[in-house]
Amino acid sequence: MSKSRTIQSHLVLPPDTNHHLSIFGGKVLAYIDEVAAIASMKHAKSEIVTAAFDSVEFKSPAYVGDILELEAIVTSTGTTSMEVYVKVKTINFRTGEERITTESFVTNVAIDSKSRPVAVPGVFPETDEEKELYEKGLLRRQQRIEKRKKQ
Amino acid sequence: MSKSRTIQSHLVLPPDTNHHLSIFGGKVLAYIDEVAAIASMKHAKSEIVTAAFDSVEFKSPAYVGDILELEAIVTSTGTTSMEVYVKVKTINFRTGEERITTESFVTNVAIDSKSRPVAVPGVFPETDEEKELYEKGLLRRQQRIEKRKKQ
Amino acid sequence: MSKSRTIQSHLVLPPDTNHHLSIFGGKVLAYIDEVAAIASMKHAKSEIVTAAFDSVEFKSPAYVGDILELEAIVTSTGTTSMEVYVKVKTINFRTGEERITTESFVTNVAIDSKSRPVAVPGVFPETDEEKELYEKGLLRRQQRIEKRKKQ
Amino acid sequence: MSKSRTIQSHLVLPPDTNHHLSIFGGKVLAYIDEVAAIASMKHAKSEIVTAAFDSVEFKSPAYVGDILELEAIVTSTGTTSMEVYVKVKTINFRTGEERITTESFVTNVAIDSKSRPVAVPGVFPETDEEKELYEKGLLRRQQRIEKRKKQ
Amino acid sequence: MSKSRTIQSHLVLPPDTNHHLSIFGGKVLAYIDEVAAIASMKHAKSEIVTAAFDSVEFKSPAYVGDILELEAIVTSTGTTSMEVYVKVKTINFRTGEERITTESFVTNVAIDSKSRPVAVPGVFPETDEEKELYEKGLLRRQQRIEKRKKQ
Amino acid sequence: MSKSRTIQSHLVLPPDTNHHLSIFGGKVLAYIDEVAAIASMKHAKSEIVTAAFDSVEFKSPAYVGDILELEAIVTSTGTTSMEVYVKVKTINFRTGEERITTESFVTNVAIDSKSRPVAVPGVFPETDEEKELYEKGLLRRQQRIEKRKKQ
Ligand SMILES: CC(C)(COP(=O)(O)OP(=O)(O)OC[C@H]1O[C@@H](n2cnc3c(N)ncnc32)[C@H](O)[C@@H]1OP(=O)(O)O)[C@@H](O)C(=O)NCCC(=O)NCCS
Ligand SMILES: CC(C)(COP(=O)(O)OP(=O)(O)OC[C@H]1O[C@@H](n2cnc3c(N)ncnc32)[C@H](O)[C@@H]1OP(=O)(O)O)[C@@H](O)C(=O)NCCC(=O)NCCS
Ligand SMILES: CC(C)(COP(=O)(O)OP(=O)(O)OC[C@H]1O[C@@H](n2cnc3c(N)ncnc32)[C@H](O)[C@@H]1OP(=O)(O)O)[C@@H](O)C(=O)NCCC(=O)NCCS
Ligand SMILES: CC(C)(COP(=O)(O)OP(=O)(O)OC[C@H]1O[C@@H](n2cnc3c(N)ncnc32)[C@H](O)[C@@H]1OP(=O)(O)O)[C@@H](O)C(=O)NCCC(=O)NCCS
Repeated sequence: MSKSRTIQSHLVLPPDTNHHLSIFGGKVLAYIDEVAAIASMKHAKSEIVTAAFDSVEFKSPAYVGDILELEAIVTSTGTTSMEVYVKVKTINFRTGEERITTESFVTNVAIDSKSRPVAVPGVFPETDEEKELYEKGLLRRQQRIEKRKKQ
Repeated sequence: MSKSRTIQSHLVLPPDTNHHLSIFGGKVLAYIDEVAAIASMKHAKSEIVTAAFDSVEFKSPAYVGDILELEAIVTSTGTTSMEVYVKVKTINFRTGEERITTESFVTNVAIDSKSRPVAVPGVFPETDEEKELYEKGLLRRQQRIEKRKKQ
Repeated sequence: MSKSRTIQSHLVLPPDTNHHLSIFGGKVLAYIDEVAAIASMKHAKSEIVTAAFDSVEFKSPAYVGDILELEAIVTSTGTTSMEVYVKVKTINFRTGEERITTESFVTNVAIDSKSRPVAVPGVFPETDEEKELYEKGLLRRQQRIEKRKKQ
Repeated sequence: MSKSRTIQSHLVLPPDTNHHLSIFGGKVLAYIDEVAAIASMKHAKSEIVTAAFDSVEFKSPAYVGDILELEAIVTSTGTTSMEVYVKVKTINFRTGEERITTESFVTNVAIDSKSRPVAVPGVFPETDEEKELYEKGLLRRQQRIEKRKKQ
Repeated sequence: MSKSRTIQSHLVLPPDTNHHLSIFGGKVLAYIDEVAAIASMKHAKSEIVTAAFDSVEFKSPAYVGDILELEAIVTSTGTTSMEVYVKVKTINFRTGEERITTESFVTNVAIDSKSRPVAVPGVFPETDEEKELYEKGLLRRQQRIEKRKKQ
Repeated sequence: MSKSRTIQSHLVLPPDTNHHLSIFGGKVLAYIDEVAAIASMKHAKSEIVTAAFDSVEFKSPAYVGDILELEAIVTSTGTTSMEVYVKVKTINFRTGEERITTESFVTNVAIDSKSRPVAVPGVFPETDEEKELYEKGLLRRQQRIEKRKKQ
């Protein structure tokens, strides 16, 4: 499972921020999408497209000069789809204090060169944390499928 | 309600796209965040921060050369929060054919110059479509609150 | 005529601005070019290139945090060229006050896949405002042709 | 006069171009604005804002891989305004062939730290080319003033 | 020593590349600068400026669609300066094959809010790899000092 | 020799800068890479890749609002490689004061459409400054070759 693990650290810079020098939610979501794409490309050994984002809550702001650290890991798989868990934290470099900015589950689908879905290998959770992510992942997948049926 | 209505049309350009020249999900989410921010700033007459995105499904891709059209409207309000509905469609300029890329509900919170939540005016739906968005909005708000309680 | 109507709203952000946090003229011109391109692609149902900009005057500045709203419409046509009228206004989201930043006439030429000019359909003004834009458009076109002859 | 002379060479890159890999007019205008700003800041020894662009004609396209060379020079002055002439040419690096992409006259106004117009020094043309630009500049200034009166 | 360790994974995208879709050296250097800045900010718990880059050799290209992985670690310190080692590798996501793109040593200086150099804590190498980097770091520091004396 | 001479002037803008509004080293290196690429493309009349940067020292910072002026010239050649000298200076537009930000030697290799190295013409220094750059260039080339042998 940890083979797909992908990290991306950033400095929060003025162009990523609003009037109050706090980062835009949309910027964070774009970073999440990139890091989730890399994790799932590593896992599937193929190109991917983003099928869906589960709901995202921005729990605390990040300001110019903060360090933003994203970590992505493929937590469960269907036939052609992968669920990627992305944790985003903000580090205050002066104090070392860390805060969760947001956590997010992204669904990516592996595709071939004609953009058709292709099968992906399964994931094998090793550590306890991975096992928990994996088992709850099956549940989340079930909820997504039911939600789509209702629409 | 229609006073907050905000539109943003884009050409899909090479820097927004992946290998297959189809737009990144993260880019679309960043556009959604910008257009929702403008709609809610118009409504609240104050600055805002993004509190949350409901789940987002990308139903069809958009390619380089396509026109992407985003439309945002404030659909319901709490005390300091606003729900913004954003519809994203892709237009093939040769055929005029339109397709829904995604629909999304963003929650923005009005803030003062010290980043503290401030009260926002209510919304008054006029057309039938607005009324439906408004009523279902109260329901969605309830669901979000329950979901957060469970965490 | 209104079928080509295209709107693009933006937040003025720090990377778009100079030292005094007021937007660069060049940034506004780049937005005008994009929105005029979309309007003329919708009208011509083909790709286009920008042939010319009439003179542009920047009447009032826009600052970080302002909302910039561009609106483009194809106002008259030649054989392969289209005149696009673009109005740019700044909205102060606190007061709702609107100011004209600039108005501009862009000439775009429809092209085929080998970059050769191709014929475009005519425009049919409906409202009074459209009729005025249309009639004055014929005049502007005449003036441009004469100006080019003199060179 | 040549003290304000400012040059900016660029490679035309994929993000600056459309579907056919030819550069956007709006991108060229943004470069023109930047290089004119530098020339007039050097001349006025103060900050500036862009007041106006005379009409701009794009005479030939520039493609990905071409070299774009912009040259700006302050050609005449009013009390607080400066006329900047900007020549843009495309160089094919394989053949060395050069083509004029566009020529443009930008009017910039010198401002103080409170954004109020401040007086600028005069220009003293030296070479014959500079003298011609200077004399025609007085004429263009006259035409702009008349045009604005008519509005 | 590993506390400063900073990772940044990227997808190589069209805007980062030249005509042949291989990444620009300048883009890689900009990434190296960002990741080295983060590592040294974590180490020094202060802001930093980039003082110097040792020579950089680009050993193999990276193409659109490749994964670029940067890893930075503070390897030795002076009074106010830090040497940061940055390794950049390219991963072919289809084959899993990894190649070294470049290795680089960046010197950053810790500064206070008035941009004056401030003292940094020392580094304590733990693993064998870290010890080797640390010891050779003292040598590289000596060479840099001598090189600067000659100028 | 002066045929390859390439100039690029920039305004230092907020998105190029850190917290203290001074420009990132990585941004300057990206500019150096672009201007060196243009100079060597003009010289070789072919596409190029960046093979190496000699060590770079940042001697003085540049702040938002400063003018950054880069000048590149091909100073010596091997069979397929070219050494490009790039001088970067900062101009304070209020006082006219100029300062060297950095000087850099970049090695670019001419390539054909299959990315294979191709031969480049020699350089012929004319002025005394050019002759000095040329002669020392041969020496620098020797040092680089020896350094690579040792690795
Ligand atoms: C994602 C996409 C390829 C799915 O196509 P489809 O015709 O529904 O394909 P399938 O029915 O075979 O589904 C493929 C997989 O995607 C999953 N999927 C499809 N839509 C989903 C959604 N909204 N949420 C979660 N998973 C979804 C399916 O469950 C299936 O998974 P499985 O193979 O593991 O069981 C298609 O909707 C698409 O191209 N969307 C646009 C993607 C894009 O371009 N995103 C970027 C921005 S627009
Ligand atoms: C959004 C934020 C201001 C809420 O702060 P808070 O201390 O929870 O404030 P409150 O409890 O007073 O809540 C304010 C409103 O936000 C709503 N809210 C808070 N979290 C929410 C969430 N996850 N989803 C939906 N609404 C939420 C509350 O319901 C409340 O709405 P109401 O006034 O209409 O009833 C705070 O979490 C924050 O600053 N987050 C970061 C925002 C940000 O910077 N986003 C960009 C990217 S990180
Ligand atoms: C615009 C362009 C296609 C015109 O080519 P051309 O050989 O002059 O073609 P034509 O003479 O057939 O003219 C085509 C149409 O363009 C119009 N046109 C050409 N130059 C124009 C100008 N400067 N201003 C207004 N209209 C112009 C002609 O009047 C004609 O219109 P019509 O068919 O409605 O009568 C060509 O000049 C070009 O490719 N320019 C570069 C465009 C570009 O790449 N712009 C982006 C930045 S450089
Ligand atoms: C540069 C590159 C083409 C050299 O390939 P190579 O197989 O070593 O080719 P050669 O041995 O034929 O060398 C070609 C020339 O490059 C020079 N060269 C190669 N590596 C060099 C280095 N690190 N420093 C200076 N010159 C170097 C050689 O001396 C030779 O010069 P000459 O023909 O003038 O004698 C190759 O290493 C490469 O593609 N690197 C990646 C370039 C790139 O994509 N950069 C951008 C960011 S990753």
